[in-house]
Amino acid sequence: MNGLDLALQEAGAAAYAAYGSSADANVRYLTRFSTTDPVVYVAKPGERGMIVVPQMEHERAVRESPAAVVTRADAGYLEYIKAGEPRWRATAHMIADLAGGPVLVPANFPLALARELESFHPVLLDTAGAVEGMRAVKTPEEIEQIRSIQRITEAALDRGLALIRGAVSRGGVLHRDGRPLTAEAVRTEMHTHLLAHGCRGTDTIVSCGPDTALPHSAGAGPLLADEPIVIDIYPQHERSGYHADMTRTVVKGEPSPEIKEMYEAVRDAKALAASGVRAGAVGADLYRATVEFFRDRGYESDMRGFTHSLGHGVGLEVHEEPSLGPQGKALVAGNVVTIEPGLYYPGTGGVRLEDMGAVTKTDFDRFTQYPEELTL
Amino acid sequence: MNGLDLALQEAGAAAYAAYGSSADANVRYLTRFSTTDPVVYVAKPGERGMIVVPQMEHERAVRESPAAVVTRADAGYLEYIKAGEPRWRATAHMIADLAGGPVLVPANFPLALARELESFHPVLLDTAGAVEGMRAVKTPEEIEQIRSIQRITEAALDRGLALIRGAVSRGGVLHRDGRPLTAEAVRTEMHTHLLAHGCRGTDTIVSCGPDTALPHSAGAGPLLADEPIVIDIYPQHERSGYHADMTRTVVKGEPSPEIKEMYEAVRDAKALAASGVRAGAVGADLYRATVEFFRDRGYESDMRGFTHSLGHGVGLEVHEEPSLGPQGKALVAGNVVTIEPGLYYPGTGGVRLEDMGAVTKTDFDRFTQYPEELTL
Repeated sequence: MNGLDLALQEAGAAAYAAYGSSADANVRYLTRFSTTDPVVYVAKPGERGMIVVPQMEHERAVRESPAAVVTRADAGYLEYIKAGEPRWRATAHMIADLAGGPVLVPANFPLALARELESFHPVLLDTAGAVEGMRAVKTPEEIEQIRSIQRITEAALDRGLALIRGAVSRGGVLHRDGRPLTAEAVRTEMHTHLLAHGCRGTDTIVSCGPDTALPHSAGAGPLLADEPIVIDIYPQHERSGYHADMTRTVVKGEPSPEIKEMYEAVRDAKALAASGVRAGAVGADLYRATVEFFRDRGYESDMRGFTHSLGHGVGLEVHEEPSLGPQGKALVAGNVVTIEPGLYYPGTGGVRLEDMGAVTKTDFDRFTQYPEELTL
Repeated sequence: MNGLDLALQEAGAAAYAAYGSSADANVRYLTRFSTTDPVVYVAKPGERGMIVVPQMEHERAVRESPAAVVTRADAGYLEYIKAGEPRWRATAHMIADLAGGPVLVPANFPLALARELESFHPVLLDTAGAVEGMRAVKTPEEIEQIRSIQRITEAALDRGLALIRGAVSRGGVLHRDGRPLTAEAVRTEMHTHLLAHGCRGTDTIVSCGPDTALPHSAGAGPLLADEPIVIDIYPQHERSGYHADMTRTVVKGEPSPEIKEMYEAVRDAKALAASGVRAGAVGADLYRATVEFFRDRGYESDMRGFTHSLGHGVGLEVHEEPSLGPQGKALVAGNVVTIEPGLYYPGTGGVRLEDMGAVTKTDFDRFTQYPEELTL
């Protein structure tokens, strides 16, 4: 019995219903249908799920989705619209017909749809996150998919770092071909490579100097010599929707002694954490061990220092289950997670290194093969 | 009084609350903050809205967002988490504190959050879509932003069409440099141009031959001579989040007489519809006039022929209000809409032409300047 059937049984629900576009990772996972407009997904215990699409999407949905495909007309939606029901009401009416009883829905189910659906059947919340739980344990095919995206990502990073490596400092600002080398240029270079290999980079971080002390600062403008440059790149493969995620920190020129020491601590923290990853290891324990490791090296984890979690699951979302943070639970074989310790000090800068890999029964099957090299 | 304050007053609500990442166009519109992880937005009547973010996002949010920025710690969230409240409960608790009374929420507000919030205050649904309504009327700045994205989009299309124009037919398949020219190659060429200009193309349609009879078929594989090629390109500007949207249909070689006739009908339908656009014109009337125009030319709008709506609003979402479909209401000055008639016949193929522009008091301020040229 899969996780969804189990959740339906436990909840005493007749069906599971979700509503969203493929930007909703649960919907994408369940339907494998790529759509910018929302679709309805309904699954009954032991049956193949069903996706309801507009007429014009029918043929494409049949091609793309392993779910049964029904048009909105066949599912009764258009009839309800013609009868004057507003959009949410007609959608709820149709879902109620398809479900035939209490409906289990995900946490992000739209309130407007739930309120209408409640007038037909009880609406039960899947508080345990059945689909998120299924998504967190990857199949061998998903693992190979994500590994291959990591290969593309490393090649993209290589292109970006080549620009930095080939730059020269003029008055502390990196230059190429007589012009300042910007974060935007490095980002575009990497995104262009990703694009040519079917992946899309979004909000890729290329931050430099003071900005690196903010872990999520996107970075902009000319890059500086002798200052840390953090590149955090987490592209999505367009066809499959899966992500990779990696971070490297580099300095073109001479890093400060503080940055050098931080780099060594972060590199060692990553190796330590990775060595503890296996099925059964508890995310919160790995996180706490990292906090303690940094403390032993003289870095408190507070408003500064190691300010974020140790890692997270990666899949159809760049951040998904399981967590390697303070609330992290036991890992299971098939999880794909990042290990990404970092240290951040306003005035000094930030250092982060991030690898990604699969949890196995015995260890961490690291996808990331990119070298760790602070000084370019 | 803005649309949100009016909705709050009408609903008798103490505050408006939204929850989402910047993939949620309402959240992006209200916060102007770019984030892949969800944030909370709360607005009280007559006050500047407030965005609640993790500590590590505080500085960036202050930089990017015109809203007041509060950390989750300052808003009490972490305290509730420490006290053992689950995530949705703690988020609802925090929103309840900030709102201090009945809360108005958007249609897509997560059910899990609403159920928790209901234990503190009444949760009222914004069924009229106050924020969608605000978004549908663009400011002059938004109009210029979208116009500039359209310029980039046309330059990208130009690059894609240049590949097709320079191709030669070998046995009916278009070739360049001795190899078949594929939909993927044309798409990548356009996406690369978009990327270099700060835009992201997603699911750009480059369909050919039989595929063109499916309006949303993405298209794949070698492109054919003498067959229609539909290119529908709707990139998003990465920094601002706004979209453009355009479609052209071309044939490299000799189009069939049916396609030629369809092209002329679609081109004339577009001109007719555009000539009717102005503030006060009703979307449904424009749609119906197009249906009638096609019928007069011998094309019934049914399961085949003109199967979709005439157009839609464009902004932070590629499909947003207002609609130029069967349910379309009166247009107002500041709407940015597409005009995109199309005809689709399995066995023959499809033709679609799409322009975008702003609705003014007197006419359609067309952003699209790209020529209409069937035969390359």
